[in-house]
Amino acid sequence: MRFFSDNAASVHPRLLEALAQANGQDTAYDGDALSAQLNDAFSDLFEIKVEALWVATGTAANSLALAAMCQPHQGVICHKEAHIEQDEAGAPGFFTGGAKLMLLDGAGAKLSAASVEAHCAAIRDDVHQVQPAAVSITNTSEYGMVYHPDEVAGLAEVCKARGLGLHMDGARFANAVATLGCSPAELTWKAGVDALSFGFVKNGGMSAEALVFFDRTLAADTHYRRKRAGHLQSKGRFLAAQILAMLENDLWLDNARAANAGAQIIAKAAHDRLLYPVEANEIFIKLSADEAAQLRATGFDFYDWGEGQARLVTSWNQSAGDVRPLAEAIAAL
Amino acid sequence: MRFFSDNAASVHPRLLEALAQANGQDTAYDGDALSAQLNDAFSDLFEIKVEALWVATGTAANSLALAAMCQPHQGVICHKEAHIEQDEAGAPGFFTGGAKLMLLDGAGAKLSAASVEAHCAAIRDDVHQVQPAAVSITNTSEYGMVYHPDEVAGLAEVCKARGLGLHMDGARFANAVATLGCSPAELTWKAGVDALSFGFVKNGGMSAEALVFFDRTLAADTHYRRKRAGHLQSKGRFLAAQILAMLENDLWLDNARAANAGAQIIAKAAHDRLLYPVEANEIFIKLSADEAAQLRATGFDFYDWGEGQARLVTSWNQSAGDVRPLAEAIAAL
Amino acid sequence: MRFFSDNAASVHPRLLEALAQANGQDTAYDGDALSAQLNDAFSDLFEIKVEALWVATGTAANSLALAAMCQPHQGVICHKEAHIEQDEAGAPGFFTGGAKLMLLDGAGAKLSAASVEAHCAAIRDDVHQVQPAAVSITNTSEYGMVYHPDEVAGLAEVCKARGLGLHMDGARFANAVATLGCSPAELTWKAGVDALSFGFVKNGGMSAEALVFFDRTLAADTHYRRKRAGHLQSKGRFLAAQILAMLENDLWLDNARAANAGAQIIAKAAHDRLLYPVEANEIFIKLSADEAAQLRATGFDFYDWGEGQARLVTSWNQSAGDVRPLAEAIAAL
Amino acid sequence: MRFFSDNAASVHPRLLEALAQANGQDTAYDGDALSAQLNDAFSDLFEIKVEALWVATGTAANSLALAAMCQPHQGVICHKEAHIEQDEAGAPGFFTGGAKLMLLDGAGAKLSAASVEAHCAAIRDDVHQVQPAAVSITNTSEYGMVYHPDEVAGLAEVCKARGLGLHMDGARFANAVATLGCSPAELTWKAGVDALSFGFVKNGGMSAEALVFFDRTLAADTHYRRKRAGHLQSKGRFLAAQILAMLENDLWLDNARAANAGAQIIAKAAHDRLLYPVEANEIFIKLSADEAAQLRATGFDFYDWGEGQARLVTSWNQSAGDVRPLAEAIAAL
Repeated sequence: MRFFSDNAASVHPRLLEALAQANGQDTAYDGDALSAQLNDAFSDLFEIKVEALWVATGTAANSLALAAMCQPHQGVICHKEAHIEQDEAGAPGFFTGGAKLMLLDGAGAKLSAASVEAHCAAIRDDVHQVQPAAVSITNTSEYGMVYHPDEVAGLAEVCKARGLGLHMDGARFANAVATLGCSPAELTWKAGVDALSFGFVKNGGMSAEALVFFDRTLAADTHYRRKRAGHLQSKGRFLAAQILAMLENDLWLDNARAANAGAQIIAKAAHDRLLYPVEANEIFIKLSADEAAQLRATGFDFYDWGEGQARLVTSWNQSAGDVRPLAEAIAAL
Repeated sequence: MRFFSDNAASVHPRLLEALAQANGQDTAYDGDALSAQLNDAFSDLFEIKVEALWVATGTAANSLALAAMCQPHQGVICHKEAHIEQDEAGAPGFFTGGAKLMLLDGAGAKLSAASVEAHCAAIRDDVHQVQPAAVSITNTSEYGMVYHPDEVAGLAEVCKARGLGLHMDGARFANAVATLGCSPAELTWKAGVDALSFGFVKNGGMSAEALVFFDRTLAADTHYRRKRAGHLQSKGRFLAAQILAMLENDLWLDNARAANAGAQIIAKAAHDRLLYPVEANEIFIKLSADEAAQLRATGFDFYDWGEGQARLVTSWNQSAGDVRPLAEAIAAL
Repeated sequence: MRFFSDNAASVHPRLLEALAQANGQDTAYDGDALSAQLNDAFSDLFEIKVEALWVATGTAANSLALAAMCQPHQGVICHKEAHIEQDEAGAPGFFTGGAKLMLLDGAGAKLSAASVEAHCAAIRDDVHQVQPAAVSITNTSEYGMVYHPDEVAGLAEVCKARGLGLHMDGARFANAVATLGCSPAELTWKAGVDALSFGFVKNGGMSAEALVFFDRTLAADTHYRRKRAGHLQSKGRFLAAQILAMLENDLWLDNARAANAGAQIIAKAAHDRLLYPVEANEIFIKLSADEAAQLRATGFDFYDWGEGQARLVTSWNQSAGDVRPLAEAIAAL
Repeated sequence: MRFFSDNAASVHPRLLEALAQANGQDTAYDGDALSAQLNDAFSDLFEIKVEALWVATGTAANSLALAAMCQPHQGVICHKEAHIEQDEAGAPGFFTGGAKLMLLDGAGAKLSAASVEAHCAAIRDDVHQVQPAAVSITNTSEYGMVYHPDEVAGLAEVCKARGLGLHMDGARFANAVATLGCSPAELTWKAGVDALSFGFVKNGGMSAEALVFFDRTLAADTHYRRKRAGHLQSKGRFLAAQILAMLENDLWLDNARAANAGAQIIAKAAHDRLLYPVEANEIFIKLSADEAAQLRATGFDFYDWGEGQARLVTSWNQSAGDVRPLAEAIAAL
């Protein structure tokens, strides 16, 4: 059983059905009937008028959001372990035309309002220093921890005071909402978020993520930038179909709850090994090389995470029955 | 019946089946078993060892190819009606970091060796002028005409003499091969092509194109650039699956032949209206506004193409029976 | 005697004196007392509050102006013979992050309101095509012709209607003003120009040009971009000193008048050879290879300009006596 | 008396003389007789064939060097206090097309071979992570400390093993050579440096720095990039003249020795306040706000450097007599 990454999991069958249903003839790019439903579907979900664009990857969604907020000579504040800094091959630098990621520390890969404010305050207001234009946070964070709405609101307050945009990388936004039990609105625009990369691929999707603009003035140029980056697929209806299937009857939330539930089973079994509280579907644990080998010998796969540590990720399609053997194996170490 | 664009056509059912079959668990990005087959599959097809990368769009394929050949301070020679110039929102400028497209004229949107040589010869060899680094041709061209292998070879000779890379935008490569009856090898590396954007989406595909490097030294950096552009999808197996299904039993060639055959039916009926010889699946005809209105009233859709002209495109899924009513309607005008 | 380029001419002695006088200790970059005078000096000259930045080259001035007006995914309309297109090594593409130069034709390297309007009208308003954001004209043009204030105003009207910025490359702005006898204001902001690259180096300067913003909202970011491009010199007082010396007692205008007067002497002698009306300090003439050789043998240097043509440029430091021998030699051919 | 920055100091009179002497007519750009001497002059100085380009600023020199070594999708390792990171407004990101600065720690703003090796070793060799392509060190460092030739060689060894270019930001290279008493060759190519930004402006120059390539294969494209960045001045002879005057009779070394000597006078007086050893012309000291105010009241100017700290910089034109009053004032605090 693989606990490498929710990226490796299968696609929810309802999405494959949606692809089949979308397979009539329709206008190319995003001129089709399904793409035309996206804005309304997300506006309903977020209880406010938003503008939403499909893209194939979270990297594209994140970078397009940042490019909309940040000129090439400006900067984006993020955590030093942020996905945009660590795992996207410099994509933000590409899409923004060379803007700088400004790296902050913080427990659990989370930024705090205080650290952002301190960072901004230390920058001289002259042309020799890159000035920040945006803050990007990841919710669920890279260490599987969630930002609560009030934490987001605290960050947004700093952003507002300093004229910075606020972006949320929500590759695992669904898992955060599932954990918090709040509404999507409460965790985003009501807390001051301007743009959200709403991830579906790690949550049972195939090849469609959504970039949701709460500040809709940021969206107009993004349509051009999406095309210019080669991300306006000519049969866009198949991306829209996936997303609409995910939103229908809150499939996205069901999937996230399932993944989170699996993580809790492991977390309990590994409670004395946890490196971070388990708040979503990622579990980071202390695990010696011997122990790791032992688990692998029993058929479990996962990432080493530095020396003596491991990362386990549960997925939407793993039932309690699927996960329990790993939990027991860890408990038995 | 729609003759707008082959982009609007449906996806071949075998690809949907391939997606379903690919829906197990596998390693993310391009670490999966299907992606691992791409190089071999294309090497077989092209009768030489190539390196192939999946991407979601032709725009991405084209731009990644050009970025591999051209530094930011250099230029790419192409036709002034080339897709990369007219319809990709400046993507080559984005991916290359600002390289310049150098626009040449030529009948049927085709470049000639002579015009490329003349253009190069007129550029002063000093730092004030942008120096070309690559030539990009579209085969089938934007006006539905094909480059024959010897025409490509003529261009390649100029390229070689001047140290330029040669890229082929093959959004409708399949249609060109179907028309010419040559081997894919003859139309590409044997004629001197370094990189090919091998299109599938206009030919019954959903969301996967292939960027094929005959000059494999160009491929290494492209893996980084693909990721950096947000084009390394995390469930890449679903792109590989589409492409492999297309290659299996030459489905790509069957589809192109079907589309081309439809075009010939219309071409015959419209023989006295043709603006260009019909060599693939696009037909450009003289058509007055009244005549266009008349056709549309009968249920046919297509693009106006400047005043008094129209573009009709046939697709893989249109049978002779589907196309004949349009042919008859045109003949009856 | 050299008639290659006004770039090759010497520096006016008053500028060298100004450098010597500036050689005390002062704050670095543009924090010095001389740089602080620039805005006022240009505001006086242009009879309106402007913001002016020194830079070392016209290429930098032009590109910074365009970057202020044009996002990376947009375009700049200019003449196909424009300096920014032909002679700046792709600098606009670099500074704008890959924006596209949209090349128009026009006699004497001049754009017309009609051609700009026609170009804009032909661009589809969709994301596949690059949308223009600015127009750049060169006054004096690359063929030594001037735009009159009403021509500029006509272009500005199109720009305003379509939301485009209007930039004037004034590498030889002084020569145009000298010819027209209008005020600097009449030829720029009163006619609708948003930003001017005000050239001094071709006009007796050493290493300082001015970028003058009439639309001052464009200036703020430009300070950052200038630094980011390595153009904020640490001893900026020496650039400011040159410019202030040029503005003092209209030295810039005297120099331009001298150069223009020399050109008229040649123009008269070569009146039956002229390719363009001589309206500033450049003379383009028909000249066979034999004739060119004959002139060179007599000690005159100049550029060939395509086959059977030559370009002669007069400079601020050439007196009538300096120029007359060339005029006579041409008349005697 | 100002101890703000060596940027604020005056220009050495011999350079003004050189400008006057250069003021004949000559070919534009770098086609003049003086620019033609640069390669030989630097080759003599460095005892090996080099290629050297003048530019107006250290920022341009640094960024052009890095762009020659580093593709847009790669990274440059430098100290987190490096000038290229802290004070150049993101210029490296601009010139490289978005490459990433990878920031390391280290006493005195110096990198060590061990820290560079450790950083490289921690980067996964996959496309998700930016791969380093170059290391940039500053000698004299941002805290006024010098790298010895063997330290440079140690870094170069890591670079060589990992295929990285090695750039030296030598804004105060002269001061380092003056301190070390080694030859310029020993501190650069003999120790493995590929490119040097050789600073003159902080050392009595006006507006010319040199970018010296020991790895001459890096130079060819840089000529294009310099032009494209607007840094190819049309009267380049005036930059060459400054540099040649600096090299003549080792004026650059005399100037640096003078500045260093002044720093030693202050260093002795402030020996119990020093934050870093004084190895060149910058002195960083502990200084309370009251003490700073006291010094300023006596007529001394300098930068505060964080709380309770100050930076003092001596210049080429400050004699022992100029500096002693400050030394005495500090001793008397």
